Formats: sequence, structure tokens, C-alpha cells
Amino acid sequence: MTVEPSTTPQTLSATTPASQAGALLDRFLSIRGRSIAVAEPLDPEDCVVQSMTETSPIKWHLAHTTWFFEAFVLQPHRKNYRPFDADFNYLFNSYYNTIGDRQPRPSRGMLTRPTMKQVLDYRKHVDRAVARLCDREELHKILEIGLQHEQQHQELMLTDVKHLLSLNPIQPPYRTRPTHVSAEPSHPLRASDNGNRGAGGVEELNYITVPHSIFWLGHRGVGFAFDNEGPRHKVYLDAFEIGDRLITNAEYLAFMADGGYERPELWLDEGWQHVQSQGWRAPLYWRESDGSWEVYTLDGTVALAPDEPVCHISFFEADAYARWAGARLPTEAEWEAASVTAPIEGHFAEADHLHPQPVASTTPSYPRQMFGDVWQWTASAYLPYRGFRPPAGALGEYNGKFMCNQFVLRGGSCVTPRSHIRRTYRNFFPPESRWQFSGIRLALDQ
Amino acid sequence: MTVEPSTTPQTLSATTPASQAGALLDRFLSIRGRSIAVAEPLDPEDCVVQSMTETSPIKWHLAHTTWFFEAFVLQPHRKNYRPFDADFNYLFNSYYNTIGDRQPRPSRGMLTRPTMKQVLDYRKHVDRAVARLCDREELHKILEIGLQHEQQHQELMLTDVKHLLSLNPIQPPYRTRPTHVSAEPSHPLRASDNGNRGAGGVEELNYITVPHSIFWLGHRGVGFAFDNEGPRHKVYLDAFEIGDRLITNAEYLAFMADGGYERPELWLDEGWQHVQSQGWRAPLYWRESDGSWEVYTLDGTVALAPDEPVCHISFFEADAYARWAGARLPTEAEWEAASVTAPIEGHFAEADHLHPQPVASTTPSYPRQMFGDVWQWTASAYLPYRGFRPPAGALGEYNGKFMCNQFVLRGGSCVTPRSHIRRTYRNFFPPESRWQFSGIRLALDQ
Amino acid sequence: MTVEPSTTPQTLSATTPASQAGALLDRFLSIRGRSIAVAEPLDPEDCVVQSMTETSPIKWHLAHTTWFFEAFVLQPHRKNYRPFDADFNYLFNSYYNTIGDRQPRPSRGMLTRPTMKQVLDYRKHVDRAVARLCDREELHKILEIGLQHEQQHQELMLTDVKHLLSLNPIQPPYRTRPTHVSAEPSHPLRASDNGNRGAGGVEELNYITVPHSIFWLGHRGVGFAFDNEGPRHKVYLDAFEIGDRLITNAEYLAFMADGGYERPELWLDEGWQHVQSQGWRAPLYWRESDGSWEVYTLDGTVALAPDEPVCHISFFEADAYARWAGARLPTEAEWEAASVTAPIEGHFAEADHLHPQPVASTTPSYPRQMFGDVWQWTASAYLPYRGFRPPAGALGEYNGKFMCNQFVLRGGSCVTPRSHIRRTYRNFFPPESRWQFSGIRLALDQ
Amino acid sequence: MTVEPSTTPQTLSATTPASQAGALLDRFLSIRGRSIAVAEPLDPEDCVVQSMTETSPIKWHLAHTTWFFEAFVLQPHRKNYRPFDADFNYLFNSYYNTIGDRQPRPSRGMLTRPTMKQVLDYRKHVDRAVARLCDREELHKILEIGLQHEQQHQELMLTDVKHLLSLNPIQPPYRTRPTHVSAEPSHPLRASDNGNRGAGGVEELNYITVPHSIFWLGHRGVGFAFDNEGPRHKVYLDAFEIGDRLITNAEYLAFMADGGYERPELWLDEGWQHVQSQGWRAPLYWRESDGSWEVYTLDGTVALAPDEPVCHISFFEADAYARWAGARLPTEAEWEAASVTAPIEGHFAEADHLHPQPVASTTPSYPRQMFGDVWQWTASAYLPYRGFRPPAGALGEYNGKFMCNQFVLRGGSCVTPRSHIRRTYRNFFPPESRWQFSGIRLALDQ
Repeated sequence: MTVEPSTTPQTLSATTPASQAGALLDRFLSIRGRSIAVAEPLDPEDCVVQSMTETSPIKWHLAHTTWFFEAFVLQPHRKNYRPFDADFNYLFNSYYNTIGDRQPRPSRGMLTRPTMKQVLDYRKHVDRAVARLCDREELHKILEIGLQHEQQHQELMLTDVKHLLSLNPIQPPYRTRPTHVSAEPSHPLRASDNGNRGAGGVEELNYITVPHSIFWLGHRGVGFAFDNEGPRHKVYLDAFEIGDRLITNAEYLAFMADGGYERPELWLDEGWQHVQSQGWRAPLYWRESDGSWEVYTLDGTVALAPDEPVCHISFFEADAYARWAGARLPTEAEWEAASVTAPIEGHFAEADHLHPQPVASTTPSYPRQMFGDVWQWTASAYLPYRGFRPPAGALGEYNGKFMCNQFVLRGGSCVTPRSHIRRTYRNFFPPESRWQFSGIRLALDQ
Repeated sequence: MTVEPSTTPQTLSATTPASQAGALLDRFLSIRGRSIAVAEPLDPEDCVVQSMTETSPIKWHLAHTTWFFEAFVLQPHRKNYRPFDADFNYLFNSYYNTIGDRQPRPSRGMLTRPTMKQVLDYRKHVDRAVARLCDREELHKILEIGLQHEQQHQELMLTDVKHLLSLNPIQPPYRTRPTHVSAEPSHPLRASDNGNRGAGGVEELNYITVPHSIFWLGHRGVGFAFDNEGPRHKVYLDAFEIGDRLITNAEYLAFMADGGYERPELWLDEGWQHVQSQGWRAPLYWRESDGSWEVYTLDGTVALAPDEPVCHISFFEADAYARWAGARLPTEAEWEAASVTAPIEGHFAEADHLHPQPVASTTPSYPRQMFGDVWQWTASAYLPYRGFRPPAGALGEYNGKFMCNQFVLRGGSCVTPRSHIRRTYRNFFPPESRWQFSGIRLALDQ
Repeated sequence: MTVEPSTTPQTLSATTPASQAGALLDRFLSIRGRSIAVAEPLDPEDCVVQSMTETSPIKWHLAHTTWFFEAFVLQPHRKNYRPFDADFNYLFNSYYNTIGDRQPRPSRGMLTRPTMKQVLDYRKHVDRAVARLCDREELHKILEIGLQHEQQHQELMLTDVKHLLSLNPIQPPYRTRPTHVSAEPSHPLRASDNGNRGAGGVEELNYITVPHSIFWLGHRGVGFAFDNEGPRHKVYLDAFEIGDRLITNAEYLAFMADGGYERPELWLDEGWQHVQSQGWRAPLYWRESDGSWEVYTLDGTVALAPDEPVCHISFFEADAYARWAGARLPTEAEWEAASVTAPIEGHFAEADHLHPQPVASTTPSYPRQMFGDVWQWTASAYLPYRGFRPPAGALGEYNGKFMCNQFVLRGGSCVTPRSHIRRTYRNFFPPESRWQFSGIRLALDQ
Repeated sequence: MTVEPSTTPQTLSATTPASQAGALLDRFLSIRGRSIAVAEPLDPEDCVVQSMTETSPIKWHLAHTTWFFEAFVLQPHRKNYRPFDADFNYLFNSYYNTIGDRQPRPSRGMLTRPTMKQVLDYRKHVDRAVARLCDREELHKILEIGLQHEQQHQELMLTDVKHLLSLNPIQPPYRTRPTHVSAEPSHPLRASDNGNRGAGGVEELNYITVPHSIFWLGHRGVGFAFDNEGPRHKVYLDAFEIGDRLITNAEYLAFMADGGYERPELWLDEGWQHVQSQGWRAPLYWRESDGSWEVYTLDGTVALAPDEPVCHISFFEADAYARWAGARLPTEAEWEAASVTAPIEGHFAEADHLHPQPVASTTPSYPRQMFGDVWQWTASAYLPYRGFRPPAGALGEYNGKFMCNQFVLRGGSCVTPRSHIRRTYRNFFPPESRWQFSGIRLALDQ
């Protein structure tokens, strides 16, 4: 059986050029504005500190995404463009060797200047200049890359500031909890529960069978996709089964209660080394307090809800859980094949929960929670697809050079913008990373 | 096109049980003796020091391989077996959590006792006890694993002692050069040659086309294979081309002369970080001296031969070279498919060069140098095959738990015993590793 | 000859209790206000980041000095005092084990909350409460300690923010240069000058002889002093000579031009290791630009002035310079003895230069520049004086527990408040520290 | 009161030149032979491994002391001397920058070649050559330095091999216990004893008063002394009291039982950091086993004897113990003044205990155990004496360049040769060092 998933043009679809330009300008203003909105609940102090090498300050994100438009759109394509500030090319280049030297990544937090105010001015300056170019059709592709890039950083702003605030012993919430979000989970868990409640009030995990096929993996078509999502190519897939929902906190607690973090036979060797050297005993942001589990969220610390998808775990933990459960993680090709019939719906950033939600009690024919809520670790190392060629120039450094010692995650999360995700989207992080909204979906051989 | 390579039973093939047992005993004594022979040119001082965390002392190798037979054969299967020394279970367990605590790997070099003499006595004691069990057919499988394990460590003894001796400023040779090996290469290279001699006197690199197929990857059959080589399963292979020989020192020098180590665009990001932090400017063991390149070998320091395969390079260097050359590394499935018609011949440990040799000037229909000389880095991360299940118990820790952040190498090297290698053999090392005899074979999309 | 320096009561001297209390309240308000003034030129972003483990964020300094009054004055001495925020005892305790656990020093920069605004509110709250206690005479001693502590942190705020801003590639000035400070030095130096100008326009270094004595070292009397300045005790001093002024940039450049940073024989072994591992080639904040030396100051980057005292050097550099110059550093007892006749005058923080100034062309009978400008490294390890007993309780942790692996500096600097310094004042830093305003005075055996 | 201790010529005293030369030759052969004797109980494997950066392999000690004679005696003073091996100048130079580059200290353990056998040949070669120069009177001073240097390394060989063997989980003894040494202490201690036995059967600690004086500190006279022991100079000493014996294991156990390792107020800040980061809970080489304390010695692991001097503690532990005991450590001047009347007797290396011994039950007028048994930490940082000038040339690097961040120890130990020690001898180690035979003597202000 060979299945080629239909190509869904997501943006810039068949319309007249004029309306296309208008749509792009709208999208540009809307997405750029969303970044400002993400930073809005924060004080200037929150926006400058770097919590670890892997994260960046909010201010840096806001400036870097702006620099991206300056470096890739304005400088090459707008005549006589004068950079807002000549130093910014050094300060806010992330990792483009082709463009030049830059502030070392571990020292992004030393940049107290420019201030937030200056960065916001920088954004306005660049936004005005870019807006005037939105009608130049030949720039739509690079503009679209800039917007997708901006959306990636919107997600990182939330994951990074969550990490930073969590390091403060007073654990301040990122925002004042919006009223439409319930403050307390229905079934707070005691640490002594040992996961006996099964999946935490959620119905039992079932598996959906996907028959063997030669599957066309990856992106092809007119809609936007990153270079690493293609070229579409054939892979052979044996029949497999895929879990019909995400793993819950209650299920993960059962793993913990069964000695999950104390049994080396459940872990990859390198994962076990992390368990020991980092003292991992629970997912990131979990804390035991008076015998109950609490979890730090962007709305502050709350009781752990048993029915929510487990989140903020590393690949190593996902892999160990799967081994304990007698299952395995799906490969990215299996995940993509299983996603073909699932609608791209779910809890994304727009839902404004900023925290994964319990699964709905429905029984569709396709796996639920494939999109949104938490990124799903796959069993696949992040490697180039057959035939992959990064584009020439600096943009060739966007994705390709990281294809080593990372694992692929699929599906987006509760802090991913809806319009940013695709079936073929390949996210990637080192296997020890925990500060992304990352969770578990299981698979089985058939 | 679907090709299933024939299964070649390599050992213990269809003979009567009695002669089988005799053959096994012969093999046992021969392989165990070979380990002693590897250590023979060394002084006791050379056998105790650990040069880095990744290597082990010769004495530890000799004791650990012996402990392996004690722990997996004698203790479970020989009634009333008394261990040679109760402490050795702690000292010489490598990484089997199932068996118990052990000397931490970075501290293997602190074990000045037991002495070499005591370790040799240990070996004799265990050899005598194991020899008496060689006629018990039900033990043949575990005995065979012990022998394959011993052979792996024979290779590591040579790579590890080479690393250790190379750190000594006086760079002592491992052995007195045997007379049948020529002391000097025919075409010593000057550093200023800049690789202008092409492939170093070797004819130009050609590619052999392999048509697309559904390929049965991995091992199946009666011969021995490690668990990680199976189960045999189908993978889809697009048509590709594979280099008909290994890359030479002369070709690698051309890469260096073209700024190979100074151009970040040729490197994976993590590789480029190694280039900078480790100061990589040439393969391991190369040294410029008065404008000429020398290389440290197990026979001491010699002028670099242009026509020999480049060796002791990391995955990062192999990958950068391939990118520079407009090619790529083959995946392990491609390598295995390309190897189907090649005979398992080449320069192995038995040839006693202990250094890779120039390719022969022949033009067979299959790629040359697929086996022996140098391990060939593939583009494949070391991951479980579809359906992989490690065996129960401690042996389940042999291979499976390392399936993370490593890359697969194929084909064996000049320090691999001939009887140890298979078409399906999967060696694996982290991408920055350079102290194995590792080199480059190129591939192209078709 | 035995000289006992007269005791100069510096504060709280013989007046009526009522005016004493009024004076203390004035001092309290004035000194507390000065801390705010130090932070005034900065943006909130500048106040939260920690540049290295040894420095602290401005915001942390402002909060910690306030916590000091809360912990040592309000909590023990004001009935029913309610802490401003119960969490602050954890967040802003520096190192008082007696008081409890605290935010780890290397993570002070993670505290984005409380914000600057909240910290300023905290200060107001505590100031109001403390002001009401200024008339309680039994609290004057602890209040004075709190003020001296505040002054220490005022100096650290300037040294720490200078370090932080210097790490920014755009090297922003701390403040807009005040008009009364000349913007440019009179004799900018070229790197190729090799120090041939002698002392940079300053007259030659002379030495003043101090005859041998049994010297009473340390503080005694009614004025305030830290515990580590006493008890006054006798030390035997051989006759010695002391340099009559500080070493200038021009003189230090001559040391550099003579291979100062390349000659191991000039250095302590541990100093030489720092030279190599840290790549020291010049004092901290110096930078060569187009063949001229520039220096980063709190007023931004300016040309290096030859006649200014060399500053921001480690003990190791001071010691190496002295060895090169055929001299040595004075011991702290020698320094104190030599200071007896010198008035406590000089360029302190109140002069608002915030940078060391050239020596005046006068020839008094006492050594010039003994106070202010730069802290002077002595040859003395920071150790307890004979008879030293730290006070009971938490304040016993103030000074005594650091008496190990540090060297004593004397005299104050251009960022030390005038009223904070004394002849007997012992500052101390590890020998590799460079971010304080630290320089060189020489001595000779007689 | 001014006391100038008499100068005791220890070696090379007033005899005729001929007998002097004969005596020197005897001493030379005897001391050089002693180094071989120290290595004699060891296997070659024990002689090559470096246990940590601070220690060196036995083989390296044997070669380095030989190189010292080659570099400082033979090369400059014997015509046409041909070095034994030209590479040894690089391999076995310890830290003399003046002489040239050298094997980095942390990598001394990588030198498996030359082998022990070759090093012993090297020693013979150099011994023969040096022996012929013993009658040249102008070389006696440098020869004596070479012998004193050799004796220092004899002590280090024992401390270093003890450290190495202790890291082996099987904790092999250094030697077969000699029959004249009793195998078991009379009063083995249970961990639960909590030190209630007082000083472990030893009579109570008394103090001996030393009146105030201007004391002549340091060495002067015809006997040998290292440069750092002079020049003799005056220091003022207030009256003090000094403990009349060393602190015992039983007393130290009382400190431990009273929470010594858990109370930060007893420790210097940097010491407390070591307690926490290194997990210090007892002196080095102590181990609790079934509720009793055992201690690893050069004769293997034995029960801890309560009446023996506590040993293998850092300055930090000595200082914390003294604070807990309401006392302090003596300064080195106090120690030297207190030693004036004590005979230079005690348990030295020649007694062959290689472990500190209980104090004798005598009551002399001078403090007992001033010499031998354990080095006594003083409260003095290791700094140059007034007027100190290191000699010109490479020997100037012997002592002076380490005068930073170390503390002085006095008195020698049970592994110090008797003829090596002097009243004025200044040993020095960083305050965290524990692998020397170092213990505690207390002092008090009077």
C-alpha cells in the first residue's frame, strides 16, 4: 500500500497577487504583534536574563527576530537601507557563520543594552520598512520564512521565560491567570497515590493499527515548509499500532511508583547517566509538597492534574516510560503516516491555556491529540531526508547543520501557534532537553 | 527490486556435535591466545594506564574478557564454581547494571593491582575451566558470544594502546616493526603539496550504481550475529551510487588545503564546535614536521603515505569531507546493500599491518575495500532496527542501551579479526571519536 | 622606636546623645540615599544581571543592604516588626549561615523578581522603620555597622556594574559624563610607545624611609572599625622604604613592553597559570585599537592616560610588576606604618571622578596617594590579627570566615566613600581578582 | 626578651675536606639507595600511574630526582657530559621554566615509557657520574641541594603511592607488614564511641607557656637550609601557650561526634565549601565499617587507634578543630620559638612505622611530638620572609614561586627522613590538601 498524503497549501494559496500581498501584510502585522503580546505581562527585568545556555532572554528573542528581517529582507532587498544600529548585526545574529561573528550564545544574557524600550523601537523601525515591501511578490518566500521564524521564537519565548521564572524560589506566574481557565484541576493527586487511578480518569489507552505501506515521507507542494521537511521520499513502513491518545500524568506517576527512576534496565545508558548526575526523580517543574505533587505552570504553581498529558520530559524519560509500558515510541515516519487522517486541531497557543489539556472523551477513528498540547518525542534521530540539500547562503544554516545528536518531535504544543504547524513539521532537540512542552505517544510493532 | 542477501553461516556450521565441540575448543584456545599475543610486545607499565575515559588499560581488557566468561558461563553453568577472586566481579564488570556495582569507567586506570602476572593467572584459571565446558552444546551460543566479545576487545586493545603510546612525547612504537612490512611509504608527502597529487597515485574515484530496492536489512540465519544486527527487516532504498574505494590521505590533504578545517559551512554545528574547542587541524596522529606530514602508527612515526586510506577521523570530519567533495556518506542500509556482491576480504588484523593499506589496482564490479583497512562512517544514527528486542538479563545490556547519540560504522578495519566481521555488523561510536581506525567512503544520490 | 598611632574617633564622637541620634539619622538617610543615587543612571535591565559569580546585580545589592537592616536591626530590636516580604530572608541573605539558607551566590542573577520598583519600595519601608530607631543609643553600634556595610556595597555596585557593562560589545558608559570631568587625557599613548616616556609625565618615583619599630598594628579606640581591624597588637618592623606615589600606566606599559606578560620568572607560579589560562596581556578593561591603548571607564571608553595610576590589576600582576622593577609590595603593617603621617585625603567617590587621577606635583614628607584612587595590594595574606575573636552570632561571619587565600588591600579607591575609609581598614580579595579599582605601590628593604 | 636560637650545623660540618668528600659520597649513595628501597615493595604497575594532578608516579619521582642531578650538577659541571637520554630533559623536568618546556604535570601518568627498568638504568648511569664529582668541593652545595631534594621526593613517593593504592577498591597494602610493628592498636574504636574516651587513653592536653619576645625567625648558619627558610629576621611574639602534644584520633572523633562536619560556624568559608562539595565526613583514609572506624595505612587497612595522632587532615579541618576546641593553630613563628628547647627526635621514616605513633607518657619541659609523626599545620600563610631573595637561575624557582595560597606546615612526619628536617624547615601545601601526613597541634593566646 502506498499512500501519498495530499498537499495542503497552508498559506499564500491561490488568490490574486494583490490580495495575496494584503494577506501577507495582515499576517506580518498580526504575527509581529503577537510577539509583543507574549512579552506584555513581563517586567523589563524578566526580559534580559538568560536562564541557561539553551535559552535566550525575551529581549534577545524580540531583537533577533527583527534582525532576521533586517538581515534577510531589508539589507539585501531594500535600496539604501540603513540599519537601525550597526552593532545589532553582531548582537542579534544567532548562529549564521555566513553573516559574520556574533555575541556568543552563552552570553546573550549579558546584553543589558539595548534596553527593552530600544528593542521595541527597533521592532517598529523594521516593521515599518518591511511592511512597505509586502507587495513585492518575489520577497514573499523570504518574508514567509521570517514569519515562520518569528513564530518559532514566540514558542521559545514562552518556554524560556517559564524556565527562567521557575528558577526563582518565589516562582512567580508568567501572567495573571485569565478567568476562562479553571484554576484547579478536578482530581489533585497525592504522591502516595502511586498512580493507582490508571490514566487519571481518562479511559484506557487503545491502539490504532496502521497497515504496512511504502509511505511518502515529508513535504511537497505549494505551501510553506522548512527545508528539512523535504524532499518527500519513499520509506517502507511495516504495519504498526499507534496509541490513540497521549500518556497522562497519572500513567506517568504509575511508572514513577514502579521505580521508573531507579531501574537502570529501563533506560538508555546515557539517559541513566542523566538520571544520576542531574538527580531526575520526576518531570521538570514537578515538586512534591506535603505528600502531594504540584507543578509549575505559566499561571503559577498548581496541583498536578492526573488527566493532563505528561509534559516537560526528556526523550530519555519518554523512551524509558515506553520500555516500562511494553511499548515503544513511534518513528517520525510512523507518526506522519498515522497523522494523515487526523485533523490539524488541538490546543495551540491561540487557545491561551499555555498548558496541555486532558483529552476529549470521543472515539474518532484517528488518534487524538496528534496536534497541540505537547510535542511528541519520536524514536527517530534528526537526520537529513534522502535528497536533502540546504539552500545556498546563510539560510542554509537554518536547519541542516543541527542534524546530529538530536531527536525529532512532532505535532506542536499548547504554546505553538496553530498556523505554524504542519503534518510534516520536524522539531528537534537533544535527548536530555526537558524545558520544551514535550510528552509521550506510544507505538507498537504489529 | 527486492534483494535478500543469502545467509552465510560463519561459524559452528553443519557438522557433527563432537567435531563442533572440538572446533569450538580450538577456536576458544586460539582466540584467547590471540589476546595474549596482542599484549606480548608491551611492558607491564604500558598495560595499566588509562589514556582517557573512552579507553581502557590493556590489563583491564585482559581481565574483563575473562570475567565475561566467568560471569556468563562459569558462574551460571558450572556447579560449585569458585570465582578466582571475589573482588574481580566489582573490578572487571564493564557496564552490566544487572550484575552489580563496578569500578567506575574513568577510574579503570587506578587499578594497579591485580598485576599483569595475576591477570594472566586469572586467564589460565578461567581458560581451563571453560575448556572443560566446550562440549556442552547448550553453552555454545553463550561461548560464542564470549569469543566475539573477546575479539571486540582485541581490536580495542590495539586502538587503546595506540592512543596511550601516542600521548608519550617520545611516541614509542607498539612493536618492533615486522620485516615483511615496508618501513617507508613510496610517496612521502610534503605539507606544501596541498593535495595536488589527486588521490595520491591512486586512480580516480569512481562510483558504482545500486538500483532502488526494498532491501532486507540486517542479519538472519544460523551464523552468529549480535542482537543489534537484527531482526532482518525491509527498508526502501532509492537508487544511489557508492564510491568504489576509500578516500585517500592525498584526497584528504586536498580538503585541508582548501580550508577544510577553517570553513564552518562545511561542518555540522556540533562538529564545528569540536574543530574550535579541540583545535582540530588534521586527523588524529598526524603531525607536521619540517613541512612534511608524519603519522604515528603502531610501528612508530612514519612519513604520511598519500595512497593510504585516510584514517582516525571523526564522523564530523568524514561528513565535512563528503560535503566538501559534493557527495555524502552512505546510510548503513545503502552500505549493506552495496556490500552484497563484495567478498569479505581485505586487510584485517591477521595481515598484521595494523595500518590501512593502499587499494589494489583492480577494477572489480563491486566496490573495493568494503572490508578491512578502516571502519567506514555511515550517515546513519545508531538506532534499534524495527522489531529489535534485546535478550533478557544482563546480556540485554550488551548493545541496546547505547542506541543514542552514536553513528554506525561498517566493514571492519586493519585491527579487526577477519572472523569477527560480517556484512551486517554494526559498529558504533559517538561522532567526535577519532581513536578508532575510521575513514571515509562516499555515496551520491542517483 | 615604637609608634602608636593616635586614635581618631571618626563618627559618633563626643557629643550629647540627642545630637548624636540626629547625626546618625542624617547619616542614615544620606548614606541610604547615596545607594539610590548610584543606581540612578541605570535602566532596570542593567540592575538585574549578574556578570560573574563574584559580582552581584545592582538590584540585589540594593535589596541585600536593606535586608541587612531588617535582619540585624528591625527583626531583633523592633517589637512586632513584620518583614516586608517573608521570602526576602532567603533571597537576600548573602552568606550568613547562622541566619539560614539562601539563594546560591552564582544564581543571584536569576532573581528577576522582585523588580527594581518593588526593591525600591522595600527600601522605603525599611528606611522608615529604621529611622524611628535612630534615637535608641543601644542600637547605634549595629546601625553603624549597617551603614558601613551599605557603603561597602556602594563601592561594589560601581565595580560590579562596570564589569557587567564592559562585557557588552557596545560598552555603554555607566553615566553621561559630568561636565566637570575632562573627557580626554592630555597624553594619549600609542601602543608602540613602549613606555619610553617614563612615568607618563609624572616625576620619577622616590622612596621614603621608615625606620624600624615595634609598631602597633590595627585599630583601637572609640571610632567605628570592623572586627578584622583589631585588636591592635605589636609587630616588629625592620626599616623599609615606601614609594612616594602610585605606579602609573606609563610605568606599567614599560613592564609590558619589556615582556612582562611573557616571562614566567617574573611571576608567582599560580599567577603565571592565570596569565596563560586567561590570556592576560594587559590590565582588565584595556584594549588595543589601531595601535593605541584605550580603556573602558564608567564614563565609557577613552584613550589611556599615561599619568594615571594603573588600575584593575590582580595581586599577581602587582607582584610581577614589583619583581620586574626590583622592588616588592609593602606588607600591610608597613603600609599602615607609612600612612601614619599622611592625611586621609585623596580622590574618593565624592569627587565623582570614578576613575583614578594623576598624582599632584607636590613633594610632601609623606607618601602621596595613600588614600583614594586605587586600592593598593599588599604582600600580606589576609589572616586574623593576634587575638582576633569574631563577635558571637551572625555578625561573626562578616569578616573572619574569609581569612584564607586572599590578600589585603589598603587605602580605598576612587569609588570608596570618604567616610568609609580608615588607616586600619583591611580590604581583601583573592590574588587573581581584577575588577576592583586596584593598583600598585612599591616598597624596598632598607 | 630576644632569643636567637643557636645555629646547628647539620651536615658538612667542620672536618677536613677529604673526609668531607667521603662523607658526602657516603650520604649520596645512601640517600640515593633509600629511594630505590622505597620503591622496592612495589610492582612496575604501581610505579607508573598518577592518582591525581597533585601526585606523581613513583617512576617519575625516581627519574625526576635523577634528572635533577643531571640538570644541575652533571650538565653544567662535568665536561663533555652526554645526557643518558636527550628526551628526559622534557619528560622529567618538574617546573623549571628557566630550563625549558616539560611534560605537563597532569599528564605525568601517561609516560609508560621509559619503563622502571630503564629508569633504574638511568639512576645507575647518573649515580656513577655524580659519584666521581663528590670530591669537588665547589659542588658540595648543589650536591647537597640534590640530596635534600631527593629526600623530599622520598617522602612524596610514600604519600603518593598511599593515595594511589587507597583508590583501589581492594586497598592493597604498600608492603608486607614488618614483624616489629604491632598489627593491631590496643583500643580499637567503635563509631558509636563518640569520642567519650577523651584523648584515647592519652593523658589530657596541657599547654606550655612561651613568654613574649623579639624572636629571630628562620635559618642562619653553615648547615644546609632551603632558601625559603631565611633570611633570619626579627619578629615580635606576644606570649602564647602551645599544646604539649599532638591531637589524637579520639579527640578528633569527639569533634566529629559534636557535629564537627555539619556546623558551618566552625569553618572558614572556603573550608565549608570543601566539606560540602567533597563530602568530607572524616579524615582522608578513614572508613566506617560495621559501626567501627578503620583506617587505610601503608600496611593496609587496620582498626583506628584512639591514641594515635590524627592524620591526613586538611588545614581547613585543623582550623575547624581548633575553633571547636576553643583554641587556635600556632603561627609558624610561634611554632619555631616553641621548638627551641625540644630535641629533634621523634618517629621519622627511619623508624619504619610509616604511620604516626602514640605519644610517650613522659612530661618533659618542652612540647612533645614537635618532630616526626605528622606535619603540623600552622596558622601562617606561606609567604617570603623579610629580605628573601631567591637565588639566580633555575634554582630560584625551587621555592619562591609557590608563595601564594598555601599554608606552612612544620616538624616533619613519620615518612620524613630524620636528616632532612630542621627547626626552621618550612613545608607548604594548599589548605585543602589531605594526602600528606598532616595533623594538629593547638595554641592559645596568653
